[in-house]
Amino acid sequence: MSDHVYKHVEITGSSEKSIEDAVQKALAKASKSIDNMRWLEVVDTRAHLENGQVAHWQVTAKVGFTLE
Amino acid sequence: MSDHVYKHVEITGSSEKSIEDAVQKALAKASKSIDNMRWLEVVDTRAHLENGQVAHWQVTAKVGFTLE
Amino acid sequence: MSDHVYKHVEITGSSEKSIEDAVQKALAKASKSIDNMRWLEVVDTRAHLENGQVAHWQVTAKVGFTLE
Amino acid sequence: MSDHVYKHVEITGSSEKSIEDAVQKALAKASKSIDNMRWLEVVDTRAHLENGQVAHWQVTAKVGFTLE
Amino acid sequence: MSDHVYKHVEITGSSEKSIEDAVQKALAKASKSIDNMRWLEVVDTRAHLENGQVAHWQVTAKVGFTLE
Amino acid sequence: MSDHVYKHVEITGSSEKSIEDAVQKALAKASKSIDNMRWLEVVDTRAHLENGQVAHWQVTAKVGFTLE
Amino acid sequence: MSDHVYKHVEITGSSEKSIEDAVQKALAKASKSIDNMRWLEVVDTRAHLENGQVAHWQVTAKVGFTLE
Amino acid sequence: MSDHVYKHVEITGSSEKSIEDAVQKALAKASKSIDNMRWLEVVDTRAHLENGQVAHWQVTAKVGFTLE
Amino acid sequence: MSDHVYKHVEITGSSEKSIEDAVQKALAKASKSIDNMRWLEVVDTRAHLENGQVAHWQVTAKVGFTLE
Amino acid sequence: MSDHVYKHVEITGSSEKSIEDAVQKALAKASKSIDNMRWLEVVDTRAHLENGQVAHWQVTAKVGFTLE
Amino acid sequence: MSDHVYKHVEITGSSEKSIEDAVQKALAKASKSIDNMRWLEVVDTRAHLENGQVAHWQVTAKVGFTLE
Amino acid sequence: MSDHVYKHVEITGSSEKSIEDAVQKALAKASKSIDNMRWLEVVDTRAHLENGQVAHWQVTAKVGFTLE
Repeated sequence: MSDHVYKHVEITGSSEKSIEDAVQKALAKASKSIDNMRWLEVVDTRAHLENGQVAHWQVTAKVGFTLE
Repeated sequence: MSDHVYKHVEITGSSEKSIEDAVQKALAKASKSIDNMRWLEVVDTRAHLENGQVAHWQVTAKVGFTLE
Repeated sequence: MSDHVYKHVEITGSSEKSIEDAVQKALAKASKSIDNMRWLEVVDTRAHLENGQVAHWQVTAKVGFTLE
Repeated sequence: MSDHVYKHVEITGSSEKSIEDAVQKALAKASKSIDNMRWLEVVDTRAHLENGQVAHWQVTAKVGFTLE
Repeated sequence: MSDHVYKHVEITGSSEKSIEDAVQKALAKASKSIDNMRWLEVVDTRAHLENGQVAHWQVTAKVGFTLE
Repeated sequence: MSDHVYKHVEITGSSEKSIEDAVQKALAKASKSIDNMRWLEVVDTRAHLENGQVAHWQVTAKVGFTLE
Repeated sequence: MSDHVYKHVEITGSSEKSIEDAVQKALAKASKSIDNMRWLEVVDTRAHLENGQVAHWQVTAKVGFTLE
Repeated sequence: MSDHVYKHVEITGSSEKSIEDAVQKALAKASKSIDNMRWLEVVDTRAHLENGQVAHWQVTAKVGFTLE
Repeated sequence: MSDHVYKHVEITGSSEKSIEDAVQKALAKASKSIDNMRWLEVVDTRAHLENGQVAHWQVTAKVGFTLE
Repeated sequence: MSDHVYKHVEITGSSEKSIEDAVQKALAKASKSIDNMRWLEVVDTRAHLENGQVAHWQVTAKVGFTLE
Repeated sequence: MSDHVYKHVEITGSSEKSIEDAVQKALAKASKSIDNMRWLEVVDTRAHLENGQVAHWQVTAKVGFTLE
Repeated sequence: MSDHVYKHVEITGSSEKSIEDAVQKALAKASKSIDNMRWLEVVDTRAHLENGQVAHWQVTAKVGFTLE
């Protein structure tokens, strides 16, 4: 692990269900172009509201992946 | 959308179940006096503890709504 | 309540299931050595990733307890 | 001035023209229901983009006004 | 306590005497229109100066109250 | 909108004229390689000085765009 | 002083009288189990309210002490 | 450039016209006593309000200059 | 007031008595070399401890004064 | 310099030797795919520990490069 | 790794030589009472000055260790 | 120590060698006009890059000195 170099990207995913699911949605799409994702940190948790309720959560995460 | 003006209020809701439910509880009460709520941002996630466990979550959100 | 003194500790728990469960896991272990835990504040929400998905959530909380 | 009490509200205005104009738009609407606005602090400067350009600026300000 | 919803307001009070008194001055005026204030957090401590001395303290606090 | 995933990039543009124009300059170049830019947030406003005046503004913005 | 190692703890004290007295209350209790406390930094100033007034101040401080 | 030492000062300028002009006003006065100003960073954007409008902008910048 | 330019300095004062008095001590010395001090903002509140008690408060403030 | 547009990336490098060397390791790998890197800002300094000692430093930097 | 619980402590070490050495000094003393230290994050880098030079560096780190 | 008043200045030094040396370079120049410098805090660590490597480190520190 001591000789790895990581790069970070920031992504936002959405879900009607939960904060965790919004993150998984973002990872599902990001994993199509990024290999070797190692960790993430949630940096912003927002929601779009309709009729006085949460219509969907929008969660932003910083993702670290190994630079090959 | 370009000619809207928004106002923000900060509210805290509680729930024994989850972080998401605490936010929904706050929205349910706030929607009685505020129309046209558009988005929210979670700004603080706390919990009240009893017997070494979470008794209820207390989540604070900043809510934006359209100023008519 | 006005004559209590509180001390704070910062702990991190992990869970494959949810953010809330990671916090409960940390409390379960901390409660073995700390009595009278009163509240917590989530200060960092991270996840360890494997195969492009969340393998487990890692949530850090600051916990306040009464100093007897 | 030493015996005044101020209350703060946070508002967001939009403008296709400039950051300053977005603030003025928000003030124009807020001044219909709030008297005695004294100062503001810009807390967030965003823009909505269309076709690779700024379609309109969205500026959030905290406004202080005298509580009568 | 688990089923309360709180709303927050930010107010600034002034006093020639002390930081604590500036907060009390702000509460005295706010309590005329807000019932059920529960807690506050000091978010800014400033002073207006005259002749090289503090003429009055200006303290800003975020106040939480129960939404009935 | 609920099923979009966004990615963010941070860019800095320069202009002798204004803060808004520095942002537009950065967008003009970024739009050559990024489609579907949706919003931006200004995160840093600096200026390069010459002869005691602003020679050009340097404005950094975080831009969000849809991940196809 | 150059060869000392310090450890920090975060504590919260309460007082009906003043911010300074709330800190002293926390120190009085902490000093029963911690020797060699050297400095503190106030990190949060809150108050519990009753009947529209401050019932007691709750002040949190980070305290540094020498690790023997 | 590698052997320069910089010192920073923080100044606030005012303008009825724009954010950029408030910065230029501050630089015009500061340049009377400071040579070799190299860059600035805007750290606070406020406005004084009269009759529900911006009367003048007050912009604070941190300015770096070469220490001869 | 719209044509003033302000400069800011950061100073730290000490007092065995109170937070307010530590600020006044710093102002008393600073006013010997700085005229026209207008306002201050408290940016750090610390204390030096001896025998488990506050020996003296050390308070840091940012002071704004008119640039003639 | 006034007509350049910069893009920023965030990278993390590791080194058993020093904080500076961890940054150089990250740059060595990043320079294989990024030309025209101009500056960096250290945003996080961490270390992995083994047997009570630093096994390797992990330093995160934001790097700015010219967008051609 | 998914079932570990971590606790964090904040410590400050000093060294006449370097920032890295100040951290190692703090770890050397902390490791006498804490087993299983896993990582650290540098949170503050200060120095004590004498005769216009750094007499010793004082570096504060947050250390995470496994709760058995 | 309890009756001292401190003033703070912010300076930036450069070095091809190390972060510590960049700070020393800044102190060497600042000590020509400032006596009685007591402590510093590193507030920003940057580097200028050439050919994919650090050409020189640029470190900004806040320095406190006794006001006589």
